[in-house]
Amino acid sequence: MSFELTKPVLEALRADVAEGRDSAIHALIRDLHPADIAMVIDRLPLDEAVYVYRLMEGEAAAEVLIELDEDLRDELLNSLTSKEIAEDVLEHIDSDDAADVMADLSEDKRREVIALLEDQEQREDIQELLTYEEGTAGALMGKEVITVRAEWSVARAIVDMRRQAHEIEHIYTIYVVDKDDRLYGILPLKDLLFSAESTRTLIKHICETDAISVTVETEAEEVVHRMKKYDVVVLPVVDATNVLLGRITFDDVMDVMSEEATEDYQLASGISEDVDATDSPIVQMRARLPWLLIGLAGGILSSRIIAQYEDQLRIVPEMAFFMPLIAATAGNVGVQSSAIVVQGLAAGNMQSVNMIARMWKELRVALLSATVCGLIIFLINLGLQQEQALTYTVSIALFTVILSAAMFGTVIPLAMDRFDVDPALATGPFVTTLNDIFGLLTYFTVGHFMYGLFP
Amino acid sequence: MSFELTKPVLEALRADVAEGRDSAIHALIRDLHPADIAMVIDRLPLDEAVYVYRLMEGEAAAEVLIELDEDLRDELLNSLTSKEIAEDVLEHIDSDDAADVMADLSEDKRREVIALLEDQEQREDIQELLTYEEGTAGALMGKEVITVRAEWSVARAIVDMRRQAHEIEHIYTIYVVDKDDRLYGILPLKDLLFSAESTRTLIKHICETDAISVTVETEAEEVVHRMKKYDVVVLPVVDATNVLLGRITFDDVMDVMSEEATEDYQLASGISEDVDATDSPIVQMRARLPWLLIGLAGGILSSRIIAQYEDQLRIVPEMAFFMPLIAATAGNVGVQSSAIVVQGLAAGNMQSVNMIARMWKELRVALLSATVCGLIIFLINLGLQQEQALTYTVSIALFTVILSAAMFGTVIPLAMDRFDVDPALATGPFVTTLNDIFGLLTYFTVGHFMYGLFP
Repeated sequence: MSFELTKPVLEALRADVAEGRDSAIHALIRDLHPADIAMVIDRLPLDEAVYVYRLMEGEAAAEVLIELDEDLRDELLNSLTSKEIAEDVLEHIDSDDAADVMADLSEDKRREVIALLEDQEQREDIQELLTYEEGTAGALMGKEVITVRAEWSVARAIVDMRRQAHEIEHIYTIYVVDKDDRLYGILPLKDLLFSAESTRTLIKHICETDAISVTVETEAEEVVHRMKKYDVVVLPVVDATNVLLGRITFDDVMDVMSEEATEDYQLASGISEDVDATDSPIVQMRARLPWLLIGLAGGILSSRIIAQYEDQLRIVPEMAFFMPLIAATAGNVGVQSSAIVVQGLAAGNMQSVNMIARMWKELRVALLSATVCGLIIFLINLGLQQEQALTYTVSIALFTVILSAAMFGTVIPLAMDRFDVDPALATGPFVTTLNDIFGLLTYFTVGHFMYGLFP
Repeated sequence: MSFELTKPVLEALRADVAEGRDSAIHALIRDLHPADIAMVIDRLPLDEAVYVYRLMEGEAAAEVLIELDEDLRDELLNSLTSKEIAEDVLEHIDSDDAADVMADLSEDKRREVIALLEDQEQREDIQELLTYEEGTAGALMGKEVITVRAEWSVARAIVDMRRQAHEIEHIYTIYVVDKDDRLYGILPLKDLLFSAESTRTLIKHICETDAISVTVETEAEEVVHRMKKYDVVVLPVVDATNVLLGRITFDDVMDVMSEEATEDYQLASGISEDVDATDSPIVQMRARLPWLLIGLAGGILSSRIIAQYEDQLRIVPEMAFFMPLIAATAGNVGVQSSAIVVQGLAAGNMQSVNMIARMWKELRVALLSATVCGLIIFLINLGLQQEQALTYTVSIALFTVILSAAMFGTVIPLAMDRFDVDPALATGPFVTTLNDIFGLLTYFTVGHFMYGLFP
């Protein structure tokens, strides 16, 4: 079953909202998955979205809320009272989602909502989760875990689990802890299901003891890496002394993966904040303008460099013909080289590679490309019967520029990574601009020399 | 527990391999997770990798094999006999991994291996999986599902599941089917664990009937989308008549997500095949050269355009100063605009948006950027006391070029998507080159006009 929102359905819904036909709206959304309802609401103008949202109640409303686009969610949260948030929303969602909702509130409202939470454990859980820094395993985890003690019998464990399971919607794994709540192992549901409900068999005899775990301080990126590497659906999170504090589920990790991919992609495209097509023009401009200004500054610097060669240009205006070719190729090569490095760093297969070895490898790729491109442009300019000096200048400059752009593209992201700056920053307009400038410098220097040689 | 491969450990291992100290190698890898062993082997030269791999046996060896980098895996597979592949590898891995391994073999070897498989069901499963087209749900799925019939009692279901479970390593969900094997619903393990083992309660009374599923033809991208949207760990795969054929697990979907992100990122960076830093220079060049050649062709076209203005350049060589600025800005804006569209299309929030509405939105963003950038360059050129004609030319051309680049960047990927071409192709050197050329044309046209106005 999967719902597709067609234009006629959307228009019918909007008409229902306009006319206040609540029962028709109910009938449409009643059987939908919360994620689908959220998708419908996301497509409505704000006032209509609020109207539809308010028609829902209890668990359904809470589940839809956490699936909504962040902007709309914030708007809706602002329209809810502290009591509504505490009783209608937080009651029905997992602690990690609850902490996310709380993080979006103002500090005063947060305090009010926390005071209104009746369940002390829930209050403590949310307060704990709010203390972890964004981008760490602590900030990703939820507190909903089912734990059994290693020294319990299977029979006792099952009784206790049934008690715990009432509060937890999805169970993927059962955690086994020792008497100090330290993580001892995991017990796949399958093993439990198929082991006799005996009072003699102890949990520690049937559980797996080599559980992959992370600590609350582990970076989100590393959490993704481990979950992918070890193919685990849910990762236990422990503190420095191995006490089990919570768990991270695969869906949160998928979200992190998407965010990381988006961020890298946007940086490579010269967009510095997380924006999308639905953001306002002002918000979009704010994310895009800085990169344009870097390019602009580079362009102005280029103009100063070229100005140095004004006399030469006056005599040989043909020199100007191939400036775009040199600059564009330098930019393209630089972006390719830095992308290879950024991906290598992200995939983790470049940490222990030393910089010289990496540069040597890249130099060989560049030599191949430079030879092919240099030769092509040489033959084309021969065919076009360009002046000898220009033909040599363009080919030699292109050859040189491909090599230097590949080196810049390799060294800059590697160096950024060493200094703990996100290397993806290097792949955008930054490296392109630098290579544009260096390319032009090379071109005019070679040209100056060649026109001396072939006057 | 997580293993980190340090340089001393790697060097010690290589010394052990060189001296044939097999027991020392065994001692190192014995307690490692297959994914960690694969990581170690991936870091060794081919001959040493083969040596270490051959030291492993049975299930461990098979599990390591499927975790290896594809290149090394292919090499290892080539060194194994058909009998070894059938008995030592395929016996121990899931059907989806088995089909992947088979897909890497030559057709003849594949036929030999299939003939050597003793289990008829396994043989049929693998043969079926090999028939699905790459990039579809069928090619991603595995045949390992636990199914119970809707009309069975809980007690009977548990007996039957115990029988089935012997062959299946991880169980996430139990599928409920009707008498014709059509998907009826799902039964979370949790519900089964906590329902009495009764002969009266029927499965159809306790199972969930609104299971999210995909068909064998569903595209991999859509599989990812649904798994993320509905937060499900494992998706059932059915045929056109809803007969349950297999399941796709979250780890396969994570791999698809990574591949898609890599592909988009590489296309945006001008790299056309999936290459990484470890590939040979020739392979890397093959993936990169086509984009450089597009840029080169664009550069040559640019040179022909500029040549038309040779006389003007001879009189006003200053015109050349700002060519890089115009071209670079046009390129940057175009990449930004197309990246926004590509991401919107990928996120699925741009399908029903009409092109005119999207262009109008983008035009407003572009107008803001164009005004800011145009004004800045105008003031700078005033400050630099450039000629009046040049000052106006640069500002007006920059303003115009930002608008046109934004429009190209928006329309091209949208149009590509309509014609079923991957819109991510538009974000790379392609759109940059086009915008470079158009930018120069605009610049010289405006310049020609302005120098007529302010002689």
